[in-house]
Amino acid sequence: MPTPCPTAILLVSCPDQRGIVAALAGFITAQHGNILALDQYVDAQDAVFFARMEWELEGFAFPLEEFPARFVAVADAFDITWTLHRSDKRRRMAIMVSKQAHCLYDILAHHESGEWPADIVQVISNHEDHRHLAERHGLPFAYIPVTPDTKATAEAQQIELLQKAGTDVVVLARYMQILSPAFVQAFPTKIINIHHSFLPAFAGGRPYHAAHERGVKIIGATAHYVTAELDEGPIIEQDVIRVSHRQGVDDLVRLGRDLEKVVLSRAIYWHLHHRLLVYKNRTVVFA
Amino acid sequence: MPTPCPTAILLVSCPDQRGIVAALAGFITAQHGNILALDQYVDAQDAVFFARMEWELEGFAFPLEEFPARFVAVADAFDITWTLHRSDKRRRMAIMVSKQAHCLYDILAHHESGEWPADIVQVISNHEDHRHLAERHGLPFAYIPVTPDTKATAEAQQIELLQKAGTDVVVLARYMQILSPAFVQAFPTKIINIHHSFLPAFAGGRPYHAAHERGVKIIGATAHYVTAELDEGPIIEQDVIRVSHRQGVDDLVRLGRDLEKVVLSRAIYWHLHHRLLVYKNRTVVFA
Amino acid sequence: MPTPCPTAILLVSCPDQRGIVAALAGFITAQHGNILALDQYVDAQDAVFFARMEWELEGFAFPLEEFPARFVAVADAFDITWTLHRSDKRRRMAIMVSKQAHCLYDILAHHESGEWPADIVQVISNHEDHRHLAERHGLPFAYIPVTPDTKATAEAQQIELLQKAGTDVVVLARYMQILSPAFVQAFPTKIINIHHSFLPAFAGGRPYHAAHERGVKIIGATAHYVTAELDEGPIIEQDVIRVSHRQGVDDLVRLGRDLEKVVLSRAIYWHLHHRLLVYKNRTVVFA
Amino acid sequence: MPTPCPTAILLVSCPDQRGIVAALAGFITAQHGNILALDQYVDAQDAVFFARMEWELEGFAFPLEEFPARFVAVADAFDITWTLHRSDKRRRMAIMVSKQAHCLYDILAHHESGEWPADIVQVISNHEDHRHLAERHGLPFAYIPVTPDTKATAEAQQIELLQKAGTDVVVLARYMQILSPAFVQAFPTKIINIHHSFLPAFAGGRPYHAAHERGVKIIGATAHYVTAELDEGPIIEQDVIRVSHRQGVDDLVRLGRDLEKVVLSRAIYWHLHHRLLVYKNRTVVFA
Repeated sequence: MPTPCPTAILLVSCPDQRGIVAALAGFITAQHGNILALDQYVDAQDAVFFARMEWELEGFAFPLEEFPARFVAVADAFDITWTLHRSDKRRRMAIMVSKQAHCLYDILAHHESGEWPADIVQVISNHEDHRHLAERHGLPFAYIPVTPDTKATAEAQQIELLQKAGTDVVVLARYMQILSPAFVQAFPTKIINIHHSFLPAFAGGRPYHAAHERGVKIIGATAHYVTAELDEGPIIEQDVIRVSHRQGVDDLVRLGRDLEKVVLSRAIYWHLHHRLLVYKNRTVVFA
Repeated sequence: MPTPCPTAILLVSCPDQRGIVAALAGFITAQHGNILALDQYVDAQDAVFFARMEWELEGFAFPLEEFPARFVAVADAFDITWTLHRSDKRRRMAIMVSKQAHCLYDILAHHESGEWPADIVQVISNHEDHRHLAERHGLPFAYIPVTPDTKATAEAQQIELLQKAGTDVVVLARYMQILSPAFVQAFPTKIINIHHSFLPAFAGGRPYHAAHERGVKIIGATAHYVTAELDEGPIIEQDVIRVSHRQGVDDLVRLGRDLEKVVLSRAIYWHLHHRLLVYKNRTVVFA
Repeated sequence: MPTPCPTAILLVSCPDQRGIVAALAGFITAQHGNILALDQYVDAQDAVFFARMEWELEGFAFPLEEFPARFVAVADAFDITWTLHRSDKRRRMAIMVSKQAHCLYDILAHHESGEWPADIVQVISNHEDHRHLAERHGLPFAYIPVTPDTKATAEAQQIELLQKAGTDVVVLARYMQILSPAFVQAFPTKIINIHHSFLPAFAGGRPYHAAHERGVKIIGATAHYVTAELDEGPIIEQDVIRVSHRQGVDDLVRLGRDLEKVVLSRAIYWHLHHRLLVYKNRTVVFA
Repeated sequence: MPTPCPTAILLVSCPDQRGIVAALAGFITAQHGNILALDQYVDAQDAVFFARMEWELEGFAFPLEEFPARFVAVADAFDITWTLHRSDKRRRMAIMVSKQAHCLYDILAHHESGEWPADIVQVISNHEDHRHLAERHGLPFAYIPVTPDTKATAEAQQIELLQKAGTDVVVLARYMQILSPAFVQAFPTKIINIHHSFLPAFAGGRPYHAAHERGVKIIGATAHYVTAELDEGPIIEQDVIRVSHRQGVDDLVRLGRDLEKVVLSRAIYWHLHHRLLVYKNRTVVFA
């Protein structure tokens, strides 16, 4: 497999208005950018325009550093909010985990396969259980216990560690502690959590118990960005599996593990490939 | 397709205990019943035993009318709660509908295909819209408008009509009125509703609006027995379909229609074939 | 629900090349067209560009009749193959059916709900069974029996009937006769069939028997455009349902019916809304 | 979680006949066995009866070693073919793998979680790539290269290694060599393979390329027992994921990996828990 040519990715949102697609496409084309993909979406209800545009860096008229200065006229004319990314810049990912390791295992497998443009720079846990697993894979592991009393200190320690490692995405791989608003604010739209239910059903603790109690015929898992409100952040991806009265809580837990890891990995993939935009507590997924 | 030999179906629940399966199977076999299916399930948590046993009537030692008297010794010994049914007895089904007709259409198609051992004895609506559709299919249609003021009278009228028609199952095919506890009590575990969300998420009104607002990536539909508490009855069947940010509320409504009708029809099928047992607000589905 | 403003829809394919998106969007914008959606896709392997562009007719600079003459410069410059459609033009749909009526029922329900911009102009069957159903819904029904000996004559009769009715889409709603290449050629990319298996598995006759024989754990249905080769046309949509060893052939047939009708209706919806492009015996679905 | 009480599991098949369920349940009950589950299924077409019966060893009247002698009268009377298993006997599992490691990673995660009553006794590969991974997890790794010329020798070496390790289940975790009939015969109904398509569609090599070429809208994975005929063995489990024209072959490969590992792990789970019976090249799954 040859290395694909590096690309630039522009994520855009603005009030919907005549001429916006033509303006965006026209700007890149005028600068000799070969557009590989232009996905756009209009929220008709609120009249907001979203787009993801990807073009080859080879042959593009100017270095990306100059993009803000060059693009400002278009951005101002259409009142555009935008972010720019390069496909050849590897992200720095941290993993937080508690006692259950199935998501961590799956992340390690994806990571080592090379399919993610990211390096795992830190593993943090409130238990020692998975030190061996992390270190076996050559990853720095930090044990930071959390109790109600030490929570503030622990979080300060975590934040320092993450920032020192230059973390730009934090994955909660079944990390069973609730993060404080301060922690969340330190990494806005950069923390991805996997919740073991089909949100908004069964938010909070022990969702498999609640699902069993309610007698649902399908269970699910939800990957979402973490916000200050528990299990209320923008949903990135969900998936489900059929169950029956025969499955006890233990079976739901077991079947759910395979769901959780797959849903989380899909969300990470999209995040790392700049395919997600957040708007009004929802995600636009340019999958 | 030859008519299958008529069968008896026994639905059973009792405290779990040694020897129960042997006792049930032994009783039927001793009476020369050829057992076609014995599905059993033990709720390990509560130590409750459930079973569905089906045997051929041909060659069975005594007429089913004598079953209670003959079975009483076994039933008493194991503290069994049971119901007995015949596969060749057609059920009398009533449909209640409001303005949306997709579930009604689907019920008519299933009904006319002959796959359900049931006759539709009455269609009731709080609107005149679908009189023509019902009557085109030769079904008695009753228009009973419901307003906050007339609700009690309207329900009395409905109950009278249903009882006069000898109704033993009521299907709410997107009937958009909430039934009073009194109505529900008149048809215990005999009213099946289709709710247009993946319960317990988005109970109550306008679930597709709520699902869109929350930004879920999958929507669902839920068929359940109606109890006194709105959308809280035992779930019979659920199914889901994947959506994305591109689907507005109108799209969810449209996609949901195909889900709703299919989920409702599956629930009706199981109910009519005596494959459902209710326990602790959950269903055991011997599918 | 207010009637949405009529739109124009342009479906485009051409060799992939720099500037194509900008040229398309620029052309419509320059003519004061408000672009509601621009979905594009590049087949990277073959370097082919596809797009669906929809814009409001209100305010557009010229009547659509002039589009070919006006667009020719762009089309020539980029070697574009295109078709143009109006959202306010109702299609003329014919249904062909045999003995199984579940897809026909479902089509009638969708049709009468008003969600399809189409009129059903003719129902044709090789059996008399469903005359009553069609006529009950006010639709012209033609009984054209087909035997090996009369097939050529029967097809000539069918084609004449369809052409006289101004048919522009033919839906095979479980029509169990194989169409000759001549028939297919008379309606290129205008005949949609539902096959009762997950193609390419179990092409040809009796797919549920074959699926049962093979012991698959999931069955499917496939809607596709009909080509001269049986069950080999471009796939439009597929869906599946889980089964187990417990389901006999009769159960697969029964469960499959709900799949077939839903898959077929989704395919019809996309076709009627000009969301399908065919390329190399595959479909691009701008869903 | 307390260790559950050890159980005995009896898998049974025989001609369907009156009294079989009563005889089985009666025999165990008479020997003071507490039946935890009795799942039965009758293939109506061929009149064959299948059952899985599980009972607690505690309190059972005799040691399992005596089962054959004690059960012979029942077995003879009903012409029963049976196998007997203990839940507390750990299986000895071997893994064969080539260059793709995603299934191996997933197996390691399941294995180390303790949810499988099995020990991994050997990993065999025709490449050196994953020696480090296996050894990191403390597993014996054997590199046995295979070329057309050395295939017979290599297989002899593999069989010897597997037999010396006391292997009673062989998992082909994306092992890309075709096993000879002799190899297969050495481990009858003991080799589980994962095929990266929804069989019987796309058997053989490069199924994702074939799926892309055919333009399917859903891809799948299939776990099956290996028989002498390639990709023709009894299917244990299948699952699918929706794709669109946007996914190139590389995307199908990537999405398929998550399917393959999950499907394979489910099949292993059922096999290890004695929930599978093979009949006429199909499986009965007492899930």
